[in-house]
Amino acid sequence: METTVQRIIDITELALRDAHQSLIATRMGIEDLTGACRDLDEAGYWSIECWGGATYDACIRYLNEDPWERLRTFKRLMPKTPLQMLLRGQNLLGYRHYQDEVVERFCYKSAENGVDVFRIFDALNDLRNIETSVRAVRKVGRHAQGTISYTVSPIHTVALFVDQAKRLQDMGVDSICIKDMAAIIKPQSAYDLVKGIKEACGPDLRLHLHVHATTGVTMVSLMKAVEAGVDCVDTAISTMSLGPGHNPTESFIEMLEGTGFGTMVDLERVLRVKSYFVSKIERYREFLSKVTGVETEIFKSQIPGGMLSNMENQLRQQGAGDRLKDVLEEIPLVRKDTGYVPLVTPSSQIVGTQAVLNVLMGHYKVLTGEFADLMLGYYGAGPGEKNPEVVRMAIEHTHKEPITCRPADLLKPEWEKLRSEALPLPGCNGTDEDVLTYAMFPQVAPKFFARRHEGPLNVGTDPLTGVSEMHPAEGHQGVITGPITYAVTVSGMEHKVTVAPFNPSTT
Amino acid sequence: METTVQRIIDITELALRDAHQSLIATRMGIEDLTGACRDLDEAGYWSIECWGGATYDACIRYLNEDPWERLRTFKRLMPKTPLQMLLRGQNLLGYRHYQDEVVERFCYKSAENGVDVFRIFDALNDLRNIETSVRAVRKVGRHAQGTISYTVSPIHTVALFVDQAKRLQDMGVDSICIKDMAAIIKPQSAYDLVKGIKEACGPDLRLHLHVHATTGVTMVSLMKAVEAGVDCVDTAISTMSLGPGHNPTESFIEMLEGTGFGTMVDLERVLRVKSYFVSKIERYREFLSKVTGVETEIFKSQIPGGMLSNMENQLRQQGAGDRLKDVLEEIPLVRKDTGYVPLVTPSSQIVGTQAVLNVLMGHYKVLTGEFADLMLGYYGAGPGEKNPEVVRMAIEHTHKEPITCRPADLLKPEWEKLRSEALPLPGCNGTDEDVLTYAMFPQVAPKFFARRHEGPLNVGTDPLTGVSEMHPAEGHQGVITGPITYAVTVSGMEHKVTVAPFNPSTT
Repeated sequence: METTVQRIIDITELALRDAHQSLIATRMGIEDLTGACRDLDEAGYWSIECWGGATYDACIRYLNEDPWERLRTFKRLMPKTPLQMLLRGQNLLGYRHYQDEVVERFCYKSAENGVDVFRIFDALNDLRNIETSVRAVRKVGRHAQGTISYTVSPIHTVALFVDQAKRLQDMGVDSICIKDMAAIIKPQSAYDLVKGIKEACGPDLRLHLHVHATTGVTMVSLMKAVEAGVDCVDTAISTMSLGPGHNPTESFIEMLEGTGFGTMVDLERVLRVKSYFVSKIERYREFLSKVTGVETEIFKSQIPGGMLSNMENQLRQQGAGDRLKDVLEEIPLVRKDTGYVPLVTPSSQIVGTQAVLNVLMGHYKVLTGEFADLMLGYYGAGPGEKNPEVVRMAIEHTHKEPITCRPADLLKPEWEKLRSEALPLPGCNGTDEDVLTYAMFPQVAPKFFARRHEGPLNVGTDPLTGVSEMHPAEGHQGVITGPITYAVTVSGMEHKVTVAPFNPSTT
Repeated sequence: METTVQRIIDITELALRDAHQSLIATRMGIEDLTGACRDLDEAGYWSIECWGGATYDACIRYLNEDPWERLRTFKRLMPKTPLQMLLRGQNLLGYRHYQDEVVERFCYKSAENGVDVFRIFDALNDLRNIETSVRAVRKVGRHAQGTISYTVSPIHTVALFVDQAKRLQDMGVDSICIKDMAAIIKPQSAYDLVKGIKEACGPDLRLHLHVHATTGVTMVSLMKAVEAGVDCVDTAISTMSLGPGHNPTESFIEMLEGTGFGTMVDLERVLRVKSYFVSKIERYREFLSKVTGVETEIFKSQIPGGMLSNMENQLRQQGAGDRLKDVLEEIPLVRKDTGYVPLVTPSSQIVGTQAVLNVLMGHYKVLTGEFADLMLGYYGAGPGEKNPEVVRMAIEHTHKEPITCRPADLLKPEWEKLRSEALPLPGCNGTDEDVLTYAMFPQVAPKFFARRHEGPLNVGTDPLTGVSEMHPAEGHQGVITGPITYAVTVSGMEHKVTVAPFNPSTT
């Protein structure tokens, strides 16, 4: 079939970040990644995503690897292709809001160490939470990509998302990404949304689409997005794809044949990357996601597959393994009470945990501190109207007042304090990078600094001999046990929410 | 999103036949299938595929189960939904051409025992090879579906396939199926082909599309086929899907939301079938296909994933594990010499085996009897011009003349002879069904008849205890060792081609 290619579709490769996060809990050590870098760099991708919250967390928590050194290594090995990271706006890679100076310093240091493209999102789509980082990234001359956290609800119309896109454009972002973290964007929705944004923002504003593969429909959504005018899509090399991961890069390239669309990506190079990861992923079999097929139930609960199986485990530990169905039915109700927040870190964990508590303890008999904060505006403003009755309960439980300002505006300057706490830690090297590590991971950073000189661990296992060179430190298996007495914990994809009973001092 | 459904797309469910053939080597015993039947029957499928060559073969070879009894069981448990089978035209479910009376008797008996829809194909797309069975099926009042074995080559244009569709229509088929057994139909090709056939044959001739999922692009091809006017698609329940199997039923249903297309299939019922198979497929883990991700290399070799890994094993046994790449490059050349036959049982095995021999022994130094027959027209007429040099070699090797007639026209009446051979076999029950079993599987049938009274085996393994109730008989692991002295064997998806050196008496 001879057809002229009329439009080039760019590709962002996810193998080094989201793919190995979604499939093997971000456990790949740097030495198992470097061998793919040359082919990745030569293949002709628009960007290579290789850094983000879970990468950073796993590096210091499990791999005794300096995440900044990983970033510099990638930059050295992939000098041609822009490197991309995922940034949680004002949360950076941590789980609380940081004061603006910390956010700015993080962006500058990330740029300096090698990040070219910053994809910046906020779980609530509260754009005030990404303003500071967008501004900082642009100031340092890097690509600031504003993100729409995609979700489905009665209030999330195409018009609402298009309005958000317009506001991102007004903010001065270099491009926009529709981020479908739960694989729930169906083909027609992808078409309508891309079309709507392109029409509203003009052809010159780049539009990217990030989807997961879990529900089995999103490869078709990519095709419809291409037809509607999307500029770039996210895919992952086939040997690191599907299940809770993403659609395969090679399939995307092949799919376009004859359609009038094409890519600049060199399939031969891509196939070498594919072969490379065959043996590598075998080494991490013990971390492999249990979800391997498709899960269309996600369309209803909007809870990603990884979190689902985790929730099931947690319920079973509580002797309530038979309540999963109740929890899955409760989640949409709790989400409705929040005004339909998108479910993505940290809101997915907050809503999921509250749903578990509602089922086990009774309807809002117990509120987690995080859930109360979400209801009171301490994570930012959500898209819809909250249930006033539940807001009232949150006030009563916490004795805190609802806020409407940008949450970070309540924060005092904190850089010097963080710096003075970090520098004396044994092993801290005195750099701003180390201060940022401490700022974002205050529990883990001290242990990491102290052990860093021992060098990176490789937690993979030789698939032939079954010999593990090094097991991860005990007690760090990705399930974080909160201080809650009834011991309900939920570990999300970025496994970081502790479930605490109402306790004003924790918020 | 509120959209009116303007056109209903029908679905054929593959779980009971092609899905478990592609994923677990057709090893599921009847007792692991019956539990799904009620929900399958109530779900609203257009048809349920549940019978075919590998089903029949596995029943008598591994499961000590009467395939006719299996069919009757399905009919009893699924009285509402049409049951569908895959028939290899004049080959029936065997590996040679049968004389017309045998073909007719098989079709009548299949209809009598429960088959409503007969999907009839020929590997070479030689329509003379399906005429007799189409006529017989129509005579007995069942649905005769004519099939286009889809392939990609310089001569396989849309026009060529459309012409074939017209000829099928002229033959009087009730519907047409495009059968993409290697998952190589790309979205634009699916669109063009469906559009072309619909325009040529008119809107009233039903058009079905069968695709596998192996290359990761065919879910999109289904969408494009729907947009182009296809009436029915084949999918498999998600827990029995993907890899060398098919696209997930639930995903297909969900995918259509908002597009103006819809299905009559009840998603709640489908999800019950999904849950049912979760535990069942676990019991057959040892038979599970090694191919689980996508394989886009198939676009080049057109060799299905299952056959690829098998070929690799065989080469390794010959101490030639490093020659796979050579073989994969040889396959398209051999295929070109045949005049670009589609690669599907048995042509895929014949071409694949000859390619192996060419690489190991030298260019056409040795010809298999099957390959020589293919070159000389004994499988029927192919679509393109054969390499005359290779035809000449086939004549020299075999001392046989090329033929141009319908191969079955050379056969003498054989029913009475088959009957007189079958009836004296110990355990033969004297029915025409038993005679047909003997006709199609003369090696296996005697052993099966002798053991049938012991009842069906279940070759699954309890996933908790690891206890297998019954292992398959030794020496029957799906790899057929041919009489060839240099011991090259290739076991395809329906594992039945023996590789013999030139020997006129075998053909």
